[in-house]
Amino acid sequence: MTKYLHTMIRVNDPAATIAFFALIGVKEFRRYDNAPGRHTLIFLAVPGEEGVAEVELTHNWDPEDYTGGRNFGHLAYGVEDIYATCQRLADAGVTINRPPRDGRMAFIRTPDGISVELLQTGDALAVREPWASMVNVGVW
Amino acid sequence: MTKYLHTMIRVNDPAATIAFFALIGVKEFRRYDNAPGRHTLIFLAVPGEEGVAEVELTHNWDPEDYTGGRNFGHLAYGVEDIYATCQRLADAGVTINRPPRDGRMAFIRTPDGISVELLQTGDALAVREPWASMVNVGVW
Repeated sequence: MTKYLHTMIRVNDPAATIAFFALIGVKEFRRYDNAPGRHTLIFLAVPGEEGVAEVELTHNWDPEDYTGGRNFGHLAYGVEDIYATCQRLADAGVTINRPPRDGRMAFIRTPDGISVELLQTGDALAVREPWASMVNVGVW
Repeated sequence: MTKYLHTMIRVNDPAATIAFFALIGVKEFRRYDNAPGRHTLIFLAVPGEEGVAEVELTHNWDPEDYTGGRNFGHLAYGVEDIYATCQRLADAGVTINRPPRDGRMAFIRTPDGISVELLQTGDALAVREPWASMVNVGVW
């Protein structure tokens, strides 16, 4: 039987990306340094989803300026409290590109520009300030 | 608790992408047409992984020429028999960009250029022809 393993993204600064994902509850649990290949592979997952749905970070040791394309859209995560999650992200300096005005959906970007969708698990939260009046920032 | 939901990719030809994913055992199980928004969302998963690890296809009805960037790498799936899977793909006209010379790993691309890694589940298969002598085609 086929089995989903992971989505791989390339990162320039693994520590920055790991700190970003930690803010939404996704943690590092495995890494492989490959010195001859001059890269490191780092696996992240929500605790309990290791082996089920992972994100693989590829860090090529020789720096590259990563940009995105339109064929890839985003990674999506359900979160318990979308306001609390977005507040934690904003406090850490992450731009909330699409604030959760509707108590249901937000978009942010990793340090290398990978779009991440956050969806409130279950019913949308009650609409409330300051979120309801926040404007979009950039694209996502 | 945070929960992984899906990876979203944009597709120009949903039927072609659905046919591609069917070849590796990933099936459509839900779709939403949004006529005012002029797009369709189609959810795919390995049967049994619905709600666990999904791929969301976004089909914008107004055509766009999708290209990729370097920050997104690939989607990865474990498969039961990497030779049989690659044979099925090749028979359907899919280019095997990185053939499974080692009985363990292959790369292909969706019709819109999303890179997909196939990994043999468990131990690598015995190295054998015609796979062992196949050369790489393009990038992935």
